[in-house]
Amino acid sequence: MRKEHDFLGELEVPDDVYYGVQTLRAIENFKITGQRVDSDFVQAMAKVKKATVLANLSTGRMPEKIGKALIQAADEIIEGKLLDQFPVDPIQGGAGTSFNMNMNEVLCNRALELTGEAKGRYDIISPNNHGNMAQSTNDTFPTAIKVCLNHKGKNLIKSLNRLVDELEKKGEEYKDIVKMGRTHLQDAVPITLGQEMNSYASSIRRGIERIQHALDTIHYVNMGGTAVGTGLNAEPQYIINVAKSLSEVTGETYKTADNMIDATNNTDGFADVSSALKNTALVIIKMCNDFRMMASGPRCGYYELKLPMRQPGSSIMPGKVNPVIAEVLNQTCYQVIGNDLAVTLGVENGQFELNVMEPVMAFNMFNSIKYLTNAIDGFVDKLLLKLEPNKEQCQMWIDRSVGIVTALLPHVGYENSAMMAKEAYNTGRPIREVVLEKGLLTKEEIDKILAPAAMTTPGIAGKD
Amino acid sequence: MRKEHDFLGELEVPDDVYYGVQTLRAIENFKITGQRVDSDFVQAMAKVKKATVLANLSTGRMPEKIGKALIQAADEIIEGKLLDQFPVDPIQGGAGTSFNMNMNEVLCNRALELTGEAKGRYDIISPNNHGNMAQSTNDTFPTAIKVCLNHKGKNLIKSLNRLVDELEKKGEEYKDIVKMGRTHLQDAVPITLGQEMNSYASSIRRGIERIQHALDTIHYVNMGGTAVGTGLNAEPQYIINVAKSLSEVTGETYKTADNMIDATNNTDGFADVSSALKNTALVIIKMCNDFRMMASGPRCGYYELKLPMRQPGSSIMPGKVNPVIAEVLNQTCYQVIGNDLAVTLGVENGQFELNVMEPVMAFNMFNSIKYLTNAIDGFVDKLLLKLEPNKEQCQMWIDRSVGIVTALLPHVGYENSAMMAKEAYNTGRPIREVVLEKGLLTKEEIDKILAPAAMTTPGIAGKD
Amino acid sequence: MRKEHDFLGELEVPDDVYYGVQTLRAIENFKITGQRVDSDFVQAMAKVKKATVLANLSTGRMPEKIGKALIQAADEIIEGKLLDQFPVDPIQGGAGTSFNMNMNEVLCNRALELTGEAKGRYDIISPNNHGNMAQSTNDTFPTAIKVCLNHKGKNLIKSLNRLVDELEKKGEEYKDIVKMGRTHLQDAVPITLGQEMNSYASSIRRGIERIQHALDTIHYVNMGGTAVGTGLNAEPQYIINVAKSLSEVTGETYKTADNMIDATNNTDGFADVSSALKNTALVIIKMCNDFRMMASGPRCGYYELKLPMRQPGSSIMPGKVNPVIAEVLNQTCYQVIGNDLAVTLGVENGQFELNVMEPVMAFNMFNSIKYLTNAIDGFVDKLLLKLEPNKEQCQMWIDRSVGIVTALLPHVGYENSAMMAKEAYNTGRPIREVVLEKGLLTKEEIDKILAPAAMTTPGIAGKD
Amino acid sequence: MRKEHDFLGELEVPDDVYYGVQTLRAIENFKITGQRVDSDFVQAMAKVKKATVLANLSTGRMPEKIGKALIQAADEIIEGKLLDQFPVDPIQGGAGTSFNMNMNEVLCNRALELTGEAKGRYDIISPNNHGNMAQSTNDTFPTAIKVCLNHKGKNLIKSLNRLVDELEKKGEEYKDIVKMGRTHLQDAVPITLGQEMNSYASSIRRGIERIQHALDTIHYVNMGGTAVGTGLNAEPQYIINVAKSLSEVTGETYKTADNMIDATNNTDGFADVSSALKNTALVIIKMCNDFRMMASGPRCGYYELKLPMRQPGSSIMPGKVNPVIAEVLNQTCYQVIGNDLAVTLGVENGQFELNVMEPVMAFNMFNSIKYLTNAIDGFVDKLLLKLEPNKEQCQMWIDRSVGIVTALLPHVGYENSAMMAKEAYNTGRPIREVVLEKGLLTKEEIDKILAPAAMTTPGIAGKD
Repeated sequence: MRKEHDFLGELEVPDDVYYGVQTLRAIENFKITGQRVDSDFVQAMAKVKKATVLANLSTGRMPEKIGKALIQAADEIIEGKLLDQFPVDPIQGGAGTSFNMNMNEVLCNRALELTGEAKGRYDIISPNNHGNMAQSTNDTFPTAIKVCLNHKGKNLIKSLNRLVDELEKKGEEYKDIVKMGRTHLQDAVPITLGQEMNSYASSIRRGIERIQHALDTIHYVNMGGTAVGTGLNAEPQYIINVAKSLSEVTGETYKTADNMIDATNNTDGFADVSSALKNTALVIIKMCNDFRMMASGPRCGYYELKLPMRQPGSSIMPGKVNPVIAEVLNQTCYQVIGNDLAVTLGVENGQFELNVMEPVMAFNMFNSIKYLTNAIDGFVDKLLLKLEPNKEQCQMWIDRSVGIVTALLPHVGYENSAMMAKEAYNTGRPIREVVLEKGLLTKEEIDKILAPAAMTTPGIAGKD
Repeated sequence: MRKEHDFLGELEVPDDVYYGVQTLRAIENFKITGQRVDSDFVQAMAKVKKATVLANLSTGRMPEKIGKALIQAADEIIEGKLLDQFPVDPIQGGAGTSFNMNMNEVLCNRALELTGEAKGRYDIISPNNHGNMAQSTNDTFPTAIKVCLNHKGKNLIKSLNRLVDELEKKGEEYKDIVKMGRTHLQDAVPITLGQEMNSYASSIRRGIERIQHALDTIHYVNMGGTAVGTGLNAEPQYIINVAKSLSEVTGETYKTADNMIDATNNTDGFADVSSALKNTALVIIKMCNDFRMMASGPRCGYYELKLPMRQPGSSIMPGKVNPVIAEVLNQTCYQVIGNDLAVTLGVENGQFELNVMEPVMAFNMFNSIKYLTNAIDGFVDKLLLKLEPNKEQCQMWIDRSVGIVTALLPHVGYENSAMMAKEAYNTGRPIREVVLEKGLLTKEEIDKILAPAAMTTPGIAGKD
Repeated sequence: MRKEHDFLGELEVPDDVYYGVQTLRAIENFKITGQRVDSDFVQAMAKVKKATVLANLSTGRMPEKIGKALIQAADEIIEGKLLDQFPVDPIQGGAGTSFNMNMNEVLCNRALELTGEAKGRYDIISPNNHGNMAQSTNDTFPTAIKVCLNHKGKNLIKSLNRLVDELEKKGEEYKDIVKMGRTHLQDAVPITLGQEMNSYASSIRRGIERIQHALDTIHYVNMGGTAVGTGLNAEPQYIINVAKSLSEVTGETYKTADNMIDATNNTDGFADVSSALKNTALVIIKMCNDFRMMASGPRCGYYELKLPMRQPGSSIMPGKVNPVIAEVLNQTCYQVIGNDLAVTLGVENGQFELNVMEPVMAFNMFNSIKYLTNAIDGFVDKLLLKLEPNKEQCQMWIDRSVGIVTALLPHVGYENSAMMAKEAYNTGRPIREVVLEKGLLTKEEIDKILAPAAMTTPGIAGKD
Repeated sequence: MRKEHDFLGELEVPDDVYYGVQTLRAIENFKITGQRVDSDFVQAMAKVKKATVLANLSTGRMPEKIGKALIQAADEIIEGKLLDQFPVDPIQGGAGTSFNMNMNEVLCNRALELTGEAKGRYDIISPNNHGNMAQSTNDTFPTAIKVCLNHKGKNLIKSLNRLVDELEKKGEEYKDIVKMGRTHLQDAVPITLGQEMNSYASSIRRGIERIQHALDTIHYVNMGGTAVGTGLNAEPQYIINVAKSLSEVTGETYKTADNMIDATNNTDGFADVSSALKNTALVIIKMCNDFRMMASGPRCGYYELKLPMRQPGSSIMPGKVNPVIAEVLNQTCYQVIGNDLAVTLGVENGQFELNVMEPVMAFNMFNSIKYLTNAIDGFVDKLLLKLEPNKEQCQMWIDRSVGIVTALLPHVGYENSAMMAKEAYNTGRPIREVVLEKGLLTKEEIDKILAPAAMTTPGIAGKD
């Protein structure tokens, strides 16, 4: 055990750990979820810290030797080492100071070790003076959230793109499978199963754009704003350099926010990211619901889709198989929507120069992205790739339908069409038969009008 | 025009109106929704005011003549007069002071008139000294919300009870209509349409209990707590008497809260009422969704229910009829859930001795109850009363189903059952035929096991 | 009374009204809010209809005479006439069919009248055949929502821009008023009141961009998609022309969605608009909360701002004035957040080819924009324009503060600074005095470091 | 490795694990959160299973030897063994079938082992036939949720009770510390710090009642309802006995729901529990906000409370200490509110005979209770027990205040009081001085009226 102190007093720290006294206090103070900070977030913070060291070296404020050691320590974390040295709870008070100091302590103790000094020798390399040089939790923490969101967001977008691609493949594969379109769950007019798949793809592509746009807006950082965004203790040149360094370290362009005070006070950019996730979840929910309804049956439902059988569906009903992969994606989306409200409440509760509720925002956004990525990957791999259309069933419904009468509208008018539809419904007879009988159109005309291709593409069916 | 002043200065008030200078300021200050305070709320506040006058008369603080006139004025409002004298916007700053003063002004000016004095003679009857005697907005406003919620809540419960009754009538009517039960939208085991109707009834009955329980908890008032709940300027005897008077005036029992300070500081009781509405909306949504799915078709869906045709369903698809009554109830329920979040945010934002966000809570709760009552009445009158089961379709699905194999489980075990189910699915043959062929059970046994009544009531089907 | 019929039967319609049988059914079916469809929405729908007539004239499908009359009727509505002819409830089942048919009926009856025919002569000009030519509720209704959102959104943005301008004026006015910055509600480091005003301005400017971006995404319409987006009954040329016509009629560019089926199935664009409103509300809430806290007092609080006195603040506490204008904006923002959840639930519940919950989405988005615009205008006019800073109080706090010790950090290190801060807190002495006594810095150095300008701009205070 | 099969095929299972083929499929199918099912939930499910075995033994359907072994296996889990055998993700499709089968497999394999048989010998003891006898996931899973909620809920209530007790101790301790009451964050009338503490206690006590009431409502179970609530495959005597057995096993009374179908279809009881948590979170948020505001300072804020210093508050501002314990409780409450929305969405999405979204509900409710319990314990231990009032500061504010003029109202009327208040504000003079000067009251009268005790208790201050 080594002794460390801060201005509240002294504590014993196990000698083998790289974190120090402030991390110990945080462990004691925040026992909420029993979880640890997301390791992507740890690595994102290490990147931010590396960028600050580089910028402080560039202004000459950071001693070379210390800076070099700190960079090596940061690099180790970025490479995946020392990830077990971050025991603080993701839901923590203090606006992330505990996580920031946890990082400062690990970096400094590792830097001390690298320079041949004993851990805890903060008189040589200090978490507050060197680890935190020209910084505040209030600029590094939200910046690390942004770096982490961009990293995780990329993975999500990759998964979403794959989902779009596979949906579009199905769109192509199923392009000739005409099925009943439904509005209000009532028989409407024909559509192809391929068109439906392409519609899902299109809606999710919009989700990608939405998420990408939200991520774009969080490439503006308040690094150098320090405590309240005014830049106290951060040299102008440091401020210019740190954004550049961060861009180099992360491999994507970060810029200093036009108004660093605003960027320190407000977290609405996180609400935007969370909304983008939520609104994308909404279209995914709709897709899952449709899949589950189309798979309804197998004997007593729509049964237009055959989902791959992933597991026995019931502990009591033999042979039953459920759309579990779609269901779990649904549930994941509900979680994302719930998480979004937690983020919303966090954002709502900023005060004056800081929003101290950032940790709960980060926790929820990270979870949302992670869960959603996982659930989408599962949906593609375990459901979509092995999806089978039930062509016969689709055709069976079309053959029974009356809704195709809509295509007659431009030819015989709404009233006549409605009258024939009503007769078909009342008598249970096929609509074609009723139409033919009325003599308003010839058989040839009817065939032309009711041709599947004619009914599922723009134009007045049956009219050249 | 007459002139009135408050400590901010003088304003001209049209001589024919009963409200005064403070109401004028409020009209100017709060132009948000363009709506007016709910008239039930106006009447609830008049009842609260009447109760205060009675209590102040009982302690001798209120001069007899003034009290008498104020009571007459309050009674007129309770009877439905003067309701056009409350022009303040329901979303208003000031924790309801504007509405409270609007009422004080109307009561005093009407009382002045009744006693032969000119409107505006507040030196004789004063909105602040007499209208507001021993009161604060901070006790009268939340109390009036409670009185109004209880009034409106009774109407809602009446409508919900009627819904339950009608559902139970359907439960009885449809008790012999066996249909396919569905879990995960997949064919499960049989159930009767009557059982489903009774299940809806049972779930909504729980909604009634939930709402009633929440309403019960808001019969504790902070009348006499005045500004911050400490009771400053309210005599102990007044506090005792005002709750009694309020009980007499409203015809239901109100009690003084055990801790009037808490009752002034906190509005979580409103969150409870709103949650009760929201959670009841959730079961209603489920019922509506089921109705809409069961009505799906008419040719290409479940079509187990025939909803009354209320209006042409489409501007383009002739003969189409949609489940519009269920849809509008769905949407109303979404509104209730959204309103609940507005209430939640209001409750969240209390500070120290008062929650100044009460007006937005009241607005949302009143709207939720009103809309929900209307939509439920519509559902009963326009859908449920004329609902028709589609017996043939229910039977058709049952005849096709394989899920009934579950009933064989106790007789032949899960593995055998699953194997036969699988064979039926793969071959498309009726399950009965497959079971019979396997020879594990005799035809008599099968008939006994698969009897509808046996499969839809507790017990091992086919076993005595 | 005249008689009209649809395929459900005949009804009597008062002869003086322009709406017809389907509107009558809708009035009867949907009695939820007691309100009417927003008149901006009526006018937006008239614009959409005018565009369809123009496009149908361009393809030659619409008879010239009828088209001309319909255009005149639409123009009258656009000019503000006939707005009392739309009595349908904004929360309505049927995905807006009732409102669409209400419009078709009014247009046709007015067109009949203009052409010298009797109202109700749908054999001459038909709501379904002419009013709805090449259309479906499923394309016109969401398109009209978009047109209305863009219209209302412009007003909101105008109000937000004015708010930003006035905040920036205050930013300039107050640029030399140094005040205590607060993080965690604890004394942090100095900032200027002007910087705070500019930070609010900056955050709200981002709100404008966010709302503008969301509005940009809803300039893609599914006009011509008709019932399910496939374009049945809409000629390709019509589809091309109708977007152009709509652009001309509205004066802003609308384009046909790349995937009209997706654009018919999904309503996530509305969720985006609602999120943009919600997230902007979040920064406004923060601003209002700060204003209310800064105005806290006047004797027992921060009291750094003096808000204009708008109305007596209490019915019981004489002389009390409350920040009612900020409070009502807060409440409006809670309403917007609640409304957003209602929209979210609507979007969540689309199924297959249509989301039938669009009416509740429209209702909530329109209300949110309207209320927010009103409340922001009130905030600017009634609070911001007459705001006064309390310079003396700001200076008083600064003089008392210890947090300025942060500026010493680069000069004497974290430990020394912390030690001096602790001593100042423990003894109650001014921090300057303690620092001077310690002898770590000269008086000249201290003066330079603690100069207000030095502490509120980037850099190491006191270092050239 | 051993081989196991279900009706989808065969898989290899590591021989040392107690779970089997269906658990393996679930691990593969659901990789969402990376977490495992809550161990309290595992134990709750083991209790449910034990109850079913007892009930099945009572009816003679379960062979004695198998039943005995299953009970021993269940007891081991209840005692805390085998908890590592439940690797399924808490967010899972299939309505909990995976978790139910995971439990059935572990129980049966352990029972096989206990009876000297090899794991995987399901022909002897079968997860589906014995582990799941007379059951379905659809009755055991929601019942286990209820058992777990009741267990966890008890812990939460214990923590809440401790919070109430400590608040009331503070209420007693601080009963003579008069401080400024604030409404609208504006100076109102005096209150004691003790009264405030008692008000928090009172509001949280109501939270306990609310949670207890919600828990009471979930003591009704659908055990024996099996797949859809009809009781297929469950003998009537079993149904009667299983509720009794469950009561014995858990030590609290569970009853069979009046309508088991409803109890299987609907999950609104979970929405009630979640609402109770949410609404309790709302009052806790308010308390935390008040604490943080009262602790505001130390030099530039209210500073009426001194919170224990738990950790350095800033990485950059020396000597700064933040209210981190209150902040983390705030954030936990936001999480609870977000989780509540996830539960709400789950409940919303039930269909027909089952709500398949139960897993996400359970996940969120369990997390909410766990996090809230932890955060409240932290608040009591790390903040409340060591809280110190700042008496001098409280008195300082009171001495400065004008709001006490309210107490004069019954003596000199609203207008005179307002006039004196206005003068005090305008001149900056103490209100006492102004009052005295006006000569409306004698010094003796003023002293009597403005006595702290008089102003903080019911009555007209200064009147006997």
